[in-house]
Parts: sequence; structure tokens; C-alpha cells
Amino acid sequence: MERLGTVAIVGVGLIGGSIGLALRARGLADRVIGIGRDRDRLAEAVTRGAIDEAETQLSRGVAHADVAVICTPVGRIAEDCILAASSGPSELLVTDAGSTKGEIVAAIERIPTACKKFVAAHPIAGSEKSGVGAASADLFTGRTCILTPTALTSPDRLERARKFWGSLGFQVTNLDPWEHDKILALTSHLPHVVASALANSVPQGYREFAAGAYRDGTRVAAADATLWAEIFLANKAAVLDAIDTFDLRLVEFRAALNSGDAGCLVNWWRGSPSDLNPANSK
Amino acid sequence: MERLGTVAIVGVGLIGGSIGLALRARGLADRVIGIGRDRDRLAEAVTRGAIDEAETQLSRGVAHADVAVICTPVGRIAEDCILAASSGPSELLVTDAGSTKGEIVAAIERIPTACKKFVAAHPIAGSEKSGVGAASADLFTGRTCILTPTALTSPDRLERARKFWGSLGFQVTNLDPWEHDKILALTSHLPHVVASALANSVPQGYREFAAGAYRDGTRVAAADATLWAEIFLANKAAVLDAIDTFDLRLVEFRAALNSGDAGCLVNWWRGSPSDLNPANSK
Repeated sequence: MERLGTVAIVGVGLIGGSIGLALRARGLADRVIGIGRDRDRLAEAVTRGAIDEAETQLSRGVAHADVAVICTPVGRIAEDCILAASSGPSELLVTDAGSTKGEIVAAIERIPTACKKFVAAHPIAGSEKSGVGAASADLFTGRTCILTPTALTSPDRLERARKFWGSLGFQVTNLDPWEHDKILALTSHLPHVVASALANSVPQGYREFAAGAYRDGTRVAAADATLWAEIFLANKAAVLDAIDTFDLRLVEFRAALNSGDAGCLVNWWRGSPSDLNPANSK
Repeated sequence: MERLGTVAIVGVGLIGGSIGLALRARGLADRVIGIGRDRDRLAEAVTRGAIDEAETQLSRGVAHADVAVICTPVGRIAEDCILAASSGPSELLVTDAGSTKGEIVAAIERIPTACKKFVAAHPIAGSEKSGVGAASADLFTGRTCILTPTALTSPDRLERARKFWGSLGFQVTNLDPWEHDKILALTSHLPHVVASALANSVPQGYREFAAGAYRDGTRVAAADATLWAEIFLANKAAVLDAIDTFDLRLVEFRAALNSGDAGCLVNWWRGSPSDLNPANSK
């Protein structure tokens, strides 16, 4: 990939910091500017080598950028994208790293000047840890980054976004924004709800008797509550549907257990819900 | 610990095989006899060094044993314990490795001759893998083994059981059998139900978009369905209660999400159910 001039990263936490580290480790850009509101965090990002320069004003930070990557919490992404698009040069590519896409894309597409510079992205990589201290140059290697272009997306920007995310180590693929949200509600948001519900079902005093199933099943319950609250709110309908789907599995389990039939439980475990009738399990 | 003469392991799978490997690695017994019905599996256990000798008849295998450890599936443990107690020498210690305790203890205590030789145990160590091929001599190091003695348990056998499990690397602790089942329903059985329900909520085609939360949250869904069906059936009431507890967390989550209030969701995530009212979250 052709070397970029300036890349502006808005929000230098786990994802933004890892983007900076990957850009610098791979020599993909002349300059990486980190933009944020917290000077201490920005200083840490400089110290850790995630960014070359720190900037607290978004409009100034993106003024000469080739690419602006918006890595702020989901609830702020659309406005940060619009602000970056209107503050940056005419050739600027604005992309984001939000875990939800439908509402973000819709909000940005209401602003034609922002829309023409924007390609929505979801780099599927994360951790229950947060902050630039947990960032890593190879967090993305072999992971999937989903782009969610629409009929309004500029083909030129889409190609540049594909190259940008690909250069960081991602396998890049495309989905419709709302389809993305429906899928991620099941593959990511639901597992987070379930992990937290599980952690909050087991009294503290019982945890010494827990083993691997509990430990692994609750790992992501340590993730940042505020970030996840924004994700759930930004994907409310799909998350509620995903919970309904999951809840149906529990209803089936209760019925199988109440039947007293081991064959029903085995079929349930193996995901054969059509065989949950004791009469079919023999 | 004083070296044991013969230890008979009934059921040489992941747990029984690991007990054999630990006994032999630590030089804790003169002879380890593996007892099972499947000659091929027993041969594999000999090859892997988990047992010295193989035996297909339980009564013959325990005839000269100091300790018989019953590691068969939960649904067969009580009868295997009774059979071992009635076939072995008068000083035999019979202990088990079952994931549930209440019904097993009750069934054995109905047989006074079995009861006086028996100490119920639950070595909390496992894996989504099964079979002697996954066994390891240090599967137990630092793990907890719960003994569930009652007023009918022989103090001498209890002390011997404590030493036996401790010598394998376990921290040994005591609980009432039904209390054990109530706790493990939450710390182990519920996480297994949840993992399997989660795996069966996500269509195969979506899994390429899943990341760590899904992977970790569903790891134990790969466990043996038949073994788990028996565990759920043997702890039915407590498992149903545990699912009710968990389900209440989902009900709370839905309410918090429907409120549209990020503070409610944050409180829910942090396990502060008393603060799930939007009016309290500010």
C-alpha cells in the first residue's frame, strides 16, 4: 500500500491506540496524530509510541490528514465523523471503529458533505481490557473488519478504506449496516449481556467453587460498562431480538429438563430443537 | 502421605485418567488398576501410563484395593459405589468424582454397608475435552475438591479421603451435599447451560463475525452432551432455580435497555440491581 501522509486517530484507547501502534510498526504513515480530550491519556499514547503527536481539538487535528479514524464511544461517533469531514481537506477519508453501524451510517448520510468522505467500519477486535495501556500493534492480525457501504458511499473512498483497514492486518469484508447490526447483536452483543448476567447471578461467596466454565463465561463482564451501555442503546431492537432468541433456548432447556428425558437434553445441547420432544429422542 | 497399596479407578476418562497419572507421577500408590467396560479405552489408559493394569469387572478390580475412586458418569456413580463397597476389603475407602452430590449421597446412605466405606467428593477440575487422551497429571494442582460428609460419614474414612484428594494436588474443603448442589448449579451447571444456549442462538453462517466474547462464552458447549444431561437430571431442582436467577438478570436487562437510560444499563452491568430505576441512576 502507498504510504499515507497524516493519519488522525480520534479517541486513543484500546482500538485507536492499537491502530496507531500498527500504523507506526508497519511504517504505513508519515505522521500519526492522536486526538482526545484527556491530556494525560494522550501523553500516555505518545509515551507508548501509539501516536507521534497529541491534539485536543478535533478540527485542528484532522486539518491536514489523509485519513481520520474515529474511535470514540458509539454514542459520539456520528458527530465526530461529521465534524472531522467538515474540518478536514477535500480528499480526507473518514472511517470509524464503532461496534454498531445502522444508526451511525443513517446519521452521517443525512449530511451529504460528510457522507461523501465517509466509509463505516467495524474492526472486530477487542478485549475486556480498555485504554491505550492495553493496546497492541498486532491486535488486528487475521481479524475481520466489516465495512458497511451503502448506495451513497463513494467508490473511491470505499477502495481507500478497504486498503487502509487491510494494511493494519484485517481481512476486510462488506455488509449492509443493518444486517451488520443484526449479526453482531447475536455474535457479540448477546455474549456480552449473557456474560454479565452470568457474573451477576453467582454470589461473591460462591465464586471460590467456580471453575473454567464460569471463568470463561464471564470474562467479558469485566469490559467497560459505559462503552457497552452505548452499544446496547445504539442497537436496541436487534439486541432485544437476540435476547429473545437466546431466551427461547432456555425455555427449551427447561422443558427438556422437566421431561426428565436424557435424550431430550442431549438433543437440546446439540442444537437439534426439532428433537426436543421425548417421543423423538429415543 | 503414607504410600497406598492398590488404588482402583472406576471409569478411566478425563478425570479418572488424570487421577491415575497424578498417582503414578507422584509415586503415591504401588499399583493403579483401571476399571472400565471398553477394552480399547483401557488399553489406551495403559499406553498413556494412567494405569498399571486394566480390569473389566468392577468387583474383581476392587477386591484388593485400599481406595476405589468412582469416576463414572453421574447417573451410574451411586450403584458403582455400592458395588465397590460390597466387593472390596473391609478397610476399603470408596470415594467418587461426581459433579452432583445430594442424590448420590442419599442413595448410598440407604445402604449402611456402603455408607460406612464412602466419602463423597467433587474434584472441581475439568475441561470441555473428555477421555483419557485429554488427561493430565497436573490437571488438579491448586484446584478445589469438595467433600460432602454427613453425620453418617465415618470420621476415619473422611480423614483418609481428605489425604487422598489432597495428595493429588487439591485444596480440600467440606460442604453439605445439598448445599454443594445448590452452589454448583450456579457456578458450574448454569454456565454450561448458558454456553450451550449461546452457541445454539447464533446461526453457523454468522460465526465468522464472532470474536472473543462468543468464543469464550461458548467454549464449554463442546463438552460431552451425555455426561451433562446426567448432571442436569441429577440436580434438576437446583439447576432450574439457577436458570430462574439468571433469567431475572435478563428481565432486568430488557427493562434497563427499554428505559433508554445509559445509567440503568451501567448499573445493571455492574450488578447493582437496586439501581435499575432510571430515577436512581442519575
